[in-house]
Amino acid sequence: MKSLLDHITYPDDLRQLALEKLPQLAKELREFIIDIVATKEGHLGASLGVVELTIALHYVFNTPHDKLIWDVGHQAYGHKILTGRKEIFETNRQLGGISGFPKRSESEYDAFGTGHSSTSISAILGMAMASQLKKNDHIQHIAVIGDASIASGMAFEALNHLGSTNSNVLVILNDNAIGIDPSVGALKKYLTNVKKGTAKDENIFECLNFHYTGPIDGHDLEALISELKHLKLVAGPKLLHVITTKGKGLKKAEENQVTYHAPGKFDKRTGELLKKSPAVNEPQKYQDVFGHTLVELADKNKAIVGITPAMPTGSSLKYMMQKMPHRAFDVGIAEQHAVTLAAGMAAEGLIPFCTIYSTFLQRAYDQVIHDVALQNLPVIFCLDRAGLVGQDGATHHGVYDIAYLRCIPNLCIFAPMNETELRNIMYTAQMGLSQPIAIRYPRGQGVQENWQTPFETIELGTARQLKKGSTIAVLTLGHIGNTVTELVDRMAEREKIGHYDMRFVKPLDKKMLAKIFKQYQTIVTIEDGSKMGGFGSAVLEWANELGHTQKISILGLDDVFIEHGTVEQLHQQAKIDTLSIEKHLKMLLNE
Amino acid sequence: MKSLLDHITYPDDLRQLALEKLPQLAKELREFIIDIVATKEGHLGASLGVVELTIALHYVFNTPHDKLIWDVGHQAYGHKILTGRKEIFETNRQLGGISGFPKRSESEYDAFGTGHSSTSISAILGMAMASQLKKNDHIQHIAVIGDASIASGMAFEALNHLGSTNSNVLVILNDNAIGIDPSVGALKKYLTNVKKGTAKDENIFECLNFHYTGPIDGHDLEALISELKHLKLVAGPKLLHVITTKGKGLKKAEENQVTYHAPGKFDKRTGELLKKSPAVNEPQKYQDVFGHTLVELADKNKAIVGITPAMPTGSSLKYMMQKMPHRAFDVGIAEQHAVTLAAGMAAEGLIPFCTIYSTFLQRAYDQVIHDVALQNLPVIFCLDRAGLVGQDGATHHGVYDIAYLRCIPNLCIFAPMNETELRNIMYTAQMGLSQPIAIRYPRGQGVQENWQTPFETIELGTARQLKKGSTIAVLTLGHIGNTVTELVDRMAEREKIGHYDMRFVKPLDKKMLAKIFKQYQTIVTIEDGSKMGGFGSAVLEWANELGHTQKISILGLDDVFIEHGTVEQLHQQAKIDTLSIEKHLKMLLNE
Repeated sequence: MKSLLDHITYPDDLRQLALEKLPQLAKELREFIIDIVATKEGHLGASLGVVELTIALHYVFNTPHDKLIWDVGHQAYGHKILTGRKEIFETNRQLGGISGFPKRSESEYDAFGTGHSSTSISAILGMAMASQLKKNDHIQHIAVIGDASIASGMAFEALNHLGSTNSNVLVILNDNAIGIDPSVGALKKYLTNVKKGTAKDENIFECLNFHYTGPIDGHDLEALISELKHLKLVAGPKLLHVITTKGKGLKKAEENQVTYHAPGKFDKRTGELLKKSPAVNEPQKYQDVFGHTLVELADKNKAIVGITPAMPTGSSLKYMMQKMPHRAFDVGIAEQHAVTLAAGMAAEGLIPFCTIYSTFLQRAYDQVIHDVALQNLPVIFCLDRAGLVGQDGATHHGVYDIAYLRCIPNLCIFAPMNETELRNIMYTAQMGLSQPIAIRYPRGQGVQENWQTPFETIELGTARQLKKGSTIAVLTLGHIGNTVTELVDRMAEREKIGHYDMRFVKPLDKKMLAKIFKQYQTIVTIEDGSKMGGFGSAVLEWANELGHTQKISILGLDDVFIEHGTVEQLHQQAKIDTLSIEKHLKMLLNE
Repeated sequence: MKSLLDHITYPDDLRQLALEKLPQLAKELREFIIDIVATKEGHLGASLGVVELTIALHYVFNTPHDKLIWDVGHQAYGHKILTGRKEIFETNRQLGGISGFPKRSESEYDAFGTGHSSTSISAILGMAMASQLKKNDHIQHIAVIGDASIASGMAFEALNHLGSTNSNVLVILNDNAIGIDPSVGALKKYLTNVKKGTAKDENIFECLNFHYTGPIDGHDLEALISELKHLKLVAGPKLLHVITTKGKGLKKAEENQVTYHAPGKFDKRTGELLKKSPAVNEPQKYQDVFGHTLVELADKNKAIVGITPAMPTGSSLKYMMQKMPHRAFDVGIAEQHAVTLAAGMAAEGLIPFCTIYSTFLQRAYDQVIHDVALQNLPVIFCLDRAGLVGQDGATHHGVYDIAYLRCIPNLCIFAPMNETELRNIMYTAQMGLSQPIAIRYPRGQGVQENWQTPFETIELGTARQLKKGSTIAVLTLGHIGNTVTELVDRMAEREKIGHYDMRFVKPLDKKMLAKIFKQYQTIVTIEDGSKMGGFGSAVLEWANELGHTQKISILGLDDVFIEHGTVEQLHQQAKIDTLSIEKHLKMLLNE
């Protein structure tokens, strides 16, 4: 029974409460978040850390009239619960349910959709400038951004612009000294000095022309509300430095902030994780195959270095960082820098493995073209979370990489179908390439019980014939090939279906393609990525150039943004799940 | 007669000179640059500004053993002349000649290729970390970066990382208060305060853990050399703040820094520009058609705003900035911020025209996907310099945009064939779209004598039939369509050739395509962009899906990086010039 929260549907209800009731509301809101995330899963620590801040903001500001943007947005659970979504919060991140991130189409209280970090200051400044032009000067504009996110280049660009305007924007720096992993960088050290009172006179934000206040305790509702009320009256760019504890209120989450960022199911009373320990010989996650294999290779090849922009845990680069801290680097949320840093290292003869989620490589697209590929530097990109990623949804699916990388000269693009293939391409790449390579693999587990297979080199631009057939050739790219292998194996029409693991989007295995197009009437391509400009499109371009006129049936993702749900559900939606592929093959066989 | 410069081929020669000879060498080097750029054209102001710095760096540091990176690189003419390229400097930016930017494949003195801004600190840090790992601790690492470039997010990411390391890197801030246009932003104001001595105690770079020295006069060779010698002995991250004057030594260039950034031909004694004034009724540049049309539209539609990341002059947004300074914004070299700022404005009902060179939009790729297209915000992107740009070469060609934008859902992509089309799509877009649009147009002039035609709306996703034919349909995208119009008009086989200005890459005009594929035996597509995943590929995907089996001949750019030369020369190389297209059409007709 949550006596206060029960009566709150919208911030207007919250604003009726007396100030002294708010700590009780914070307690109830925190419990509500823990209750639901404990069973439904999701991001936990970040939202627990801003419970008081969330209440204070909606208490002081006139949302949704005033504009409030949550950077990244995985800390916005409290915000969602207090803004009309309490009753449906249990549908969080599920197919058809609410999004795990703020989303304009979901609520007028979500002023701007977020997901990727460091966008909030740019967006809120755009809104504030719009208000100024429309003479809506009474609207307040607030962005809440973490200390890891504010250190990203995009946020600096926005601060640099904002600081030169007279826009009435409040930036709240939510300083908990951690992103998903602990924050890094000179700014973080500086902020630590500020907190300890050991920084010198002028504040870095004051240098950028901000009215700076803080640091204040982000769990002290009275202090927060008093300061926010004060800042409401201060004109121009303002920065409020708030200190919070990620995971606040759940002991285990406070103590293990990385684990409890998104802990999966847990006991809501004790915080104990409910994850069964993985079965012996259960397939590993691709990220761990990457992480462990990198250590194995780096043990022998001293030129190997590892780079991650703020994802040591998510990418499993942490294994190398633990074992070889001088050769594996977390550079913070700085994808652009990460890629060009890798280019600089490669220019001097190191072999950099630069691991970035597919969706975040979008942040460093120019650097891949201009600093790596143009100079033909052999940087090895390991793109985790390629394809549909599931519950994180539209902001996080890594589905454009094939299309946006394919047009870049010099770049080799590979997708492993299983753990052995991932290991072997990593092994091959560190032997010394004369060009850069992008290796894309999905979120989640592989398929092999014994993944630690001996290394073999892979000849660049060679596909694998998995199975001959008489009529239809199925050309798959990456992990989704396993779906086809299992499927075809049990189909009555199996003799008619050939299966090829193309693995290289670029260079295509033209010899193999020539053989395939000679032998089969119908070609099917399957990929976990955008069909427009993707792998199927590459095969099609090749076939057209050579004058082949067979039907090429391209399966993949249509030209729409895909929301959240389990990967299985989303594959069904996209018709690249087992049943849909089976149906499609049967239809083609009956034509 | 350049008595000192004549005897210098490499920095080793320079290092033989006595300190007191260096001012004379600076004078000669400056004259040499002026002499050649006056007749051969190129970037002028930036290189004149760093003549003393260039000499001092090569005098003090042991290049190429020590690593020196010039950010952006258009200020590196003096560097090129002093590092073995004096004799061929007159081939600068010409086909087969040396590049206008540093380039690894051109000289071992060019430690890292540049062109786009703000990459140097990341790259030099990568090199310094490589040296540390290889225990080559005696190598010095220097990046020279301007005040406009250091304000870009990527540079901040690198400073933030560098400041947290013990890497022995010297960042030289070349502060001339101008990029191509005058610098903007809070950091620029701050640097001005530093120069005036009105900044407070702690320096912003000291906050980021840099050893800061300066500001010093960048034209005082003795001061520079003394300070560089000193800094050679300081360990860890260092920043030297140097004040220079862009265009130094040529009066007109100092007085008109924007014009003399890349002035074209001029009188080397007086600095007077030799450009003939444009003939009456000569076609305008596309950028000016954009710039003037925007003012025309914004006069009537008060919701229109304009945004440029540091290209007011190059994009011609300056016209709106001059006439409506409160509605047109230069945000500095901050493409990421520019795009999300536009998204924030669009979310609040403004109509942002965000003008960015095609090659620089690569810097904001994630923002286009995540902040604009995913939220379906009607931002209007005006992509200048799309296609091959000529002498700026490989770093600056805008040839990937079609491929990398095409896979983004919700985004409309348009290329005008002429001025009227550009004006009409701008007119249409500001009437209120329900989705974002990217309008790509080339560097250089249009084709119409009278470009200020009355506005007409363009229905989204409609192509134009320019000419019917019997056998071959030529489908062109954008300005290159004019080449085909002129060509076909004079061909004997003209009756056989139909010509369609497809203008929309997305959505494709499927009705028109259906008609075309019904009527013609052979289809040719032509685009000034990458063939991989480009416009031709889009047509091919459509045709394959509908089961058309005609030959589709795709003309465009092959999967290689294209160097510098005139646009005409590069089009010839790529076989998309008049003669090559004619030959190709004749070959197809004879098949």
